Parts: sequence; structure tokens; C-alpha cells
Amino acid sequence: MWRKLLAGTAMISMKSVKCSDLGSAMNDLPEYTWEEIRTHKTPGQSVWIVMGNGVYDITRFVEMHPGGDKILLAAGSSADPFWNLYRIHKQEKVYDMLESLRIGNLKAGEKLEAMNDPFSGDPNRSAHLITHTEKAYNGELPNDLLTEKILTPNNEFFVRNHLPVPVVDENTYELELILEDEKCTSFSLKDLKSKFPIVSVESSIQCAGNRRFEANQQGVTRGVEWRGGAIGNAIWTGVRLRDILKYLGEINPEYKHVQIEALDTDPNGPFGTSIPIEKAMDSDTVLAFEMNGETLPRDHGFPVRLIVPGYVGVRNIKWVKRITLSTSESPLIWHKRDYRLFSPNDSLGNVNFEERQPVYDMPVQSVICSPLDSTSFNSKNENVNFKGFAYSGGGRGIVRVELTTDHGESWTEAQLEKRPQRLGRRWSWAFWNANIPASDIEKEVCVRAIDDAGHGQPESLKSIWNYRGLLTNSWHCIHLTRK
Amino acid sequence: MWRKLLAGTAMISMKSVKCSDLGSAMNDLPEYTWEEIRTHKTPGQSVWIVMGNGVYDITRFVEMHPGGDKILLAAGSSADPFWNLYRIHKQEKVYDMLESLRIGNLKAGEKLEAMNDPFSGDPNRSAHLITHTEKAYNGELPNDLLTEKILTPNNEFFVRNHLPVPVVDENTYELELILEDEKCTSFSLKDLKSKFPIVSVESSIQCAGNRRFEANQQGVTRGVEWRGGAIGNAIWTGVRLRDILKYLGEINPEYKHVQIEALDTDPNGPFGTSIPIEKAMDSDTVLAFEMNGETLPRDHGFPVRLIVPGYVGVRNIKWVKRITLSTSESPLIWHKRDYRLFSPNDSLGNVNFEERQPVYDMPVQSVICSPLDSTSFNSKNENVNFKGFAYSGGGRGIVRVELTTDHGESWTEAQLEKRPQRLGRRWSWAFWNANIPASDIEKEVCVRAIDDAGHGQPESLKSIWNYRGLLTNSWHCIHLTRK
Repeated sequence: MWRKLLAGTAMISMKSVKCSDLGSAMNDLPEYTWEEIRTHKTPGQSVWIVMGNGVYDITRFVEMHPGGDKILLAAGSSADPFWNLYRIHKQEKVYDMLESLRIGNLKAGEKLEAMNDPFSGDPNRSAHLITHTEKAYNGELPNDLLTEKILTPNNEFFVRNHLPVPVVDENTYELELILEDEKCTSFSLKDLKSKFPIVSVESSIQCAGNRRFEANQQGVTRGVEWRGGAIGNAIWTGVRLRDILKYLGEINPEYKHVQIEALDTDPNGPFGTSIPIEKAMDSDTVLAFEMNGETLPRDHGFPVRLIVPGYVGVRNIKWVKRITLSTSESPLIWHKRDYRLFSPNDSLGNVNFEERQPVYDMPVQSVICSPLDSTSFNSKNENVNFKGFAYSGGGRGIVRVELTTDHGESWTEAQLEKRPQRLGRRWSWAFWNANIPASDIEKEVCVRAIDDAGHGQPESLKSIWNYRGLLTNSWHCIHLTRK
Repeated sequence: MWRKLLAGTAMISMKSVKCSDLGSAMNDLPEYTWEEIRTHKTPGQSVWIVMGNGVYDITRFVEMHPGGDKILLAAGSSADPFWNLYRIHKQEKVYDMLESLRIGNLKAGEKLEAMNDPFSGDPNRSAHLITHTEKAYNGELPNDLLTEKILTPNNEFFVRNHLPVPVVDENTYELELILEDEKCTSFSLKDLKSKFPIVSVESSIQCAGNRRFEANQQGVTRGVEWRGGAIGNAIWTGVRLRDILKYLGEINPEYKHVQIEALDTDPNGPFGTSIPIEKAMDSDTVLAFEMNGETLPRDHGFPVRLIVPGYVGVRNIKWVKRITLSTSESPLIWHKRDYRLFSPNDSLGNVNFEERQPVYDMPVQSVICSPLDSTSFNSKNENVNFKGFAYSGGGRGIVRVELTTDHGESWTEAQLEKRPQRLGRRWSWAFWNANIPASDIEKEVCVRAIDDAGHGQPESLKSIWNYRGLLTNSWHCIHLTRK
């Protein structure tokens, strides 16, 4: 993505910069004070930023920034805190590009921004996880380990972090509840556990970007290249969100949304989102403090995570800090500028976020987890056994899973592992397996699932591709060779 | 379908029979009494039926009956009442086939089954409706009239009847409520209107077989050949089903289903179905006695119709007679043997109904209503205007509608008529329109809609085709010529 963008910025001359040199003072350039720098923060007119001792005029670059106008958060100030959080910047090509915009040095004696590592407090992770990015951490289980257990072990559950993992003291933790423009209160962890009924709900959580690796084969997208393992299933124990919401009295019907702010932050403020009040009032929407019977791990939201069964991962907010009953959706950038139902026509520079509804519910999905893609099978065996998972959002159950070895000319129905779940409240994935005659397998084997609303998966990725690689749910195809 | 089946029955010799001759006494055949005939009703061994004065041994034919084992309802007795209800039988080819199975005459003096017309009390219908079958009546509005009004006029709302329209006296009508193995009560129409709060809900109703005409282009299916108009939208006024269900006290949590029996019947019993208790308890599930502010028309369920927003048409039971809170799904054949999520591999003779979940919720749908298929456009105009409807089941709203003139290489976003509706409770269709440059239109124009769970419509009909032609929701394509 950077490469593509940088290739397009021909008017910006390049020179090669070693990573350690970025922002070093340069003898032949003018010096600026923070006071002067702070006046250059007007998009379209003049935008300066500081990195280390370097001062840069990025006015021309703002429109091309792959992270959108988030770059303006650093306008007239230091970009160091952002680059420490969003490590994608830390590569030579980006440094070169920035250095080409250099206009001066920070005046000697002006205070430098601290360069500490905000990720130094992150927990250790299981060696089973495929790590996509270390800071912020994003990792998933390989597909073939994913369907070993219907309840994903806590330390093998995919981790999708946007920011450093907050360090929280459970003894001083307070959950804030705010009624917009009215009352507020707060609860300690002990309050939560003693004042409200404790309930458990089994629910899968899937990242909106799952299978983005495949989306990238169709066209470049923006985000972590999940292979299919950005999903897991657990029993979450905690208290019902609706019990908390009702704590201050009957809920004013003007409150249509529940905003949730988290403890993980960047210099612009907290991570967060909102969900519609109807979903917040569902008996299965819980503030969880346990995952599969254990204290919630730090990577999964310790001490309190919101579980919104049937909704996309990002609404299942970790490290919940504050809950606000509101007339409107969350004003936070994480909610307003991402995770929306994008069209294939939307692009990084041309998307009307207001027009695109947030992803809440999710479409039907399935993945062949075993055998792994690009492996071989013994063609002397009569059958090859395939297994995997299927899932649909909104509590819709999976009614059928089918495999094809001839790209949809014919379908073989898989055995679906049946589990007792109620219609409209099937929050968990389903496992399936199928034996396919080895002689039928030419090269490609694809799977599709059908949910109880009759929705299947699209045949081709092409028609659903979007620049963020969200909701990639076309038939999942793997390629096998004979041995 | 009959033709295909009859072609396969080579061992049954054919002779041509005039319709009026069917069942006439024939001189050279033995005579049987009802007492004898009644002993021949054992499938697999010996099955006789009577038509008029004719006695037929249909043992060999039972398996091939397009209506499945419903034919056994007439085993050892007269088939006349069934043929009067299911008029598809009344064609020369069927008569020929039956006469080839003739074995005798009804003994002189045995009482003949009455041959009255059970459809003689049916109401008149609007001339705007395209009539597919007269008895039972099935008719739809042409596509181009469908999107004239967001609330479909009552007399132009598609009619899907399975049986004759019941003749009901509103003064003596009683709605029965039964708690399985416990209590029961009944309500007059006056009771319903005076004992419970009156509510209104706007909801579209779509037949599961809508667009079956297209499914038949892919392969022969069984059912009415709807063109896209088996959908309508209305405001339904009545009382909440949950208020009725609670009338006899708190609901025993063992009751997982609400069975509904209707007043339309065949000799086997009433039409009917069931819905899960969760849906029955939804505040928008109503027993309606008004449609768009008028008394419910006879064709649409007078005096009381169950409205189950977001659910397939067949669950919106007309002419409601009896409601039973039960531990199990409806035992009625209409529920158990049809309207299920069939696989492309299921066939008339080979389907495990127990394995297939009933269709409740429905997948996303859209139709180009104007221009009509196979018409021409003025290629001198700059643009051609397209309009139509989009709908998804389960209360999911439509977030986007897109058209393509190059079969999915590129998409143009349509203008969606925006109406205030709550997330998860968008029960009504959405209208859309789009201007497409005339120069872009080669021949085919297709539409697809995306609902708020991110579900789109499948590209090709092939992979979703099933023998009943249910849930046909692939991209809707029309073909236009230049003029």
C-alpha cells in the first residue's frame, strides 16, 4: 500500500535515509520553536509535524496518507507518539518519503518528545499463534489447529489489538455508566460481580477482516492479512449489559445507542464504538469478566469485555471503561471512519463514511481448515477427509455445508456437528467434516455454508472485494496436489 | 412436470381419454363395492382409488406421484375431493395416465362422491393481477406496477392460496387458543378488538417461490411460476400474538413453538404451520384484522391473519382458526413436507424433510421492476431509468443496491429511497432507482442488493436452484433491445 502510494507521489523527491537518522538535526536548515510549529496545523494551507529533531512540511502529503486524515492529529506537533503506536510507519521507504519533506530542525533547547515504547507492557503470547504484527499485536491460530476444540483455548484465541494492551489494576478499576446529559455512576469489579445476576453465553467472535489474505489476491486492501483464523469461540461469563443500563432507572426511549469507550488509547483519545439499544438490551449481550471459566486474559479485555453475540468482532469491545446511553452513535473515529459496509467502488481517498452503515451483523462464512491449502494428499487412499468451521452472524445457525471439486457443477453435503441451540440465537460456529473420493479431486476444493435465512456465500471474491478487505466470505477454496 | 414424469412411466400403457369420460362405467370390467375398495390402501402392496364410477389400481404409480405421498390420502377411497382441490390433475395427459390403471367399476347402487366445486365461493380479483392458477387462486401484479406505491393496494397485493377461500361469518368466528395438554379458551372478533391493545406494523410479505419462473429456466421445479411480483407491502393492524398467548397465564418455558391452524382445509385437515416461540413473542408479530386501514380482504385472510414480519409468506397464516402453544413444531403436512431449505441435491423422490429446516427468515432479494424484461429502450436518450424493489428477511434492512451492465465487472450504485426504520426491525421492502447511460447498455442489465448483515445475492441461479424453486434470489437480470 505504501509502495503503491509512494509510487504515485512523483513530485516528492526521494533520498535514502537510514532508520536511525530520521529526525536527526541537519546543519544547513533553519530552526523552529514549538510555538512557531504549533501555528502550522491548517489542512489545505499549511501542516507541519515534528519527528525527533526534524521539522517537516507535510501539507502536500496529507491527502495521500494511507491512514486518512488521522495524520492531522499530529498537525503542528510531534508525530512520534503516533509512529510508536502505528508501527507500519517504521520502514525505510516511509522514512525516505518523510525526509524529502524536511524543512528544518527543532530549535536547540526545545523539549524532545519522549521515545518510550508503549507496547512494552504487552503480555506474552502462545507460540501457536501466527503473528502478523507485533505492535499492536495481531495473531491467529493456523487453520488446522482451529477446529481441534469447539471452545477455543484462551491462549490460542486470535488476538486483534489496535493499540497497546492497557495495564489495569483490578482493585482500582471502575466501570463508568453515563446517561447522556443526566446522571452517572460507576462500579468496581466487586460491585459488578455482587450487584447483578451472573450469566454465561457461548459466542464466537470473528474479525471483520478475516480472510483478508485472500482479498489481497484480488486487489490491495488495507489491514492485517488474516488467513481464516481470525475467529474463535468461547463461553463468556459476566453480567447482562441491560441490567447495568437499567441501574439508574427506566431507560429514556430517546436513547437509541449505547456508546462504549475502552481503556486502550492513542493521543487522540480512547478506542470505542457503539451498538444499537435493541442489541444492548438483548439478554445475551454481556459484560464478561471470565472466558471459558478463567479470568479474562489481558489480550482479551481484562478486566471487562463487552460480548455482543452475532456482531462483528470490533463491537465486542475489550477493556471497557465507560458506557454511555446516548441519542447518537459513537463519535469516536474508530466507529465513524472504519468497519463499515463498504462498496467495491469505495476507495481510500473516496468514501462517504456517513453513507456507509457500520458492520454489526455479519454474513455467512466457512473455511476448510484441514487439509491446509497448498498441501498434498495421498491419491492411493479412497477418500480425503475435509474439516472446518462455518458461522453466520445475527444468531443465524448453519443449516448446510457443501463442498465442490468442480467449482460448483456439483456439491457434496458435509456432516454438520449438531449442537442444541435456539433459532435466532445460534451465536457459535459449527464444525463440519466430509469425505471426498480422492479420485474426484483434481486440484481445487471449495466449501460454502448456508445459514438458516437461506443465505449462501458468494461464488467469487471479485464482486464483494472492498478496499478494506472486510467481510471476505466467498467460497473458500484450497489447492491440493497428489502424492 | 407431469409430462416429464409421465414420459418416465414407460411400463404404463397410455390411451387417450376425453376429460368428460374419466371414471365413466365401462362394460367389460368387474364391479367393486366401497367395502372391498377400502381394503386396498396399503402402500407398497396394493393401493386403489375411485374417480367417478372408475376403480383404479395405482400401486405402481404411488412413487411417481408429483405430489408425493399425498396421493395416499385417497387410498381405498375416492380421489374426487382431492382433484377438485388440486386442479393440476385436470388435464388430458393425467386422465390418460390414470385410465391406463383402470381395473373396474364402482358397483351399481354404491353412493357416488359429490362433484361440487369447492372454489365457487372464492372472491373476485383485480384485473391488474396476472393469474397463474384459478383454483386455488394464485396471482401477482406485473413488475412495472409493483413499485408504484410503497404500500401495495389491497386488491393488487399478490394472492397465494393453497385451497379454497373459507367463507367466514364474522359474528360467529371464534379464535381458539390451546395450551397443549392444559387449558383452552376462545375469542370472538369482538373479544380480540376489545381485550387487547390494538397495534399496527408495516411489513412486506414475500412468497418463498417468488421468481420461480427464472428457476424453471435452470431446471424444472414444482410450483407457481411467479415472475417477481409475489411480494407486497402493507400496514397490518390487529393485536399482538404475545398478548393472546399470555392470556391464560405465564407461558410454560417448555412450549418452544406456536402452532397455527387455518380455516382453509382439504380432506386431510387444515392448512397450518408453526413458528418458534421467540418469534411469536416479538412485539411486532400480530394477529391482524385490518390491512392498510381496511377490513382484511377475504383473499388475504379475513377475518384474522397472522403477520410474522421478516418471515416467509407461508408462515403469515391467513384465516387463523386455532393457536396452540406446543413443545413441538406443527405436525401438519403443509409444515412438515414443504417450504424447507432444500439443497440442490434434493429431489421430489429423494428428500429427507426432517433434515431440512423450515424456511422462516429469508435471504436478500431485489428485482428490476421497470423497464420490463424483454422490452426496448430509446438509445437516443442519454440515460435509461431503472427502478425496482429490494428486500431482506429477518428485519435486516437494505444498505445498498447496485446495477451492472457488464455482468459484474463494474457496478453502479442506485439511489435508495430512505425511510426511517429501526435496525433489525426493517420489515418493509425498499424502493430504488438508477439512471444508466444508454450507451452502456449492451443487452443485459442486472441488479443486486446488499442487506445490513453484508449479505448479497448470488451471481448465478445454478448454484442455488432446488426442485421446489424456493428462495430464488440470484442477481435479477433483464434483457433490453435498442430502438
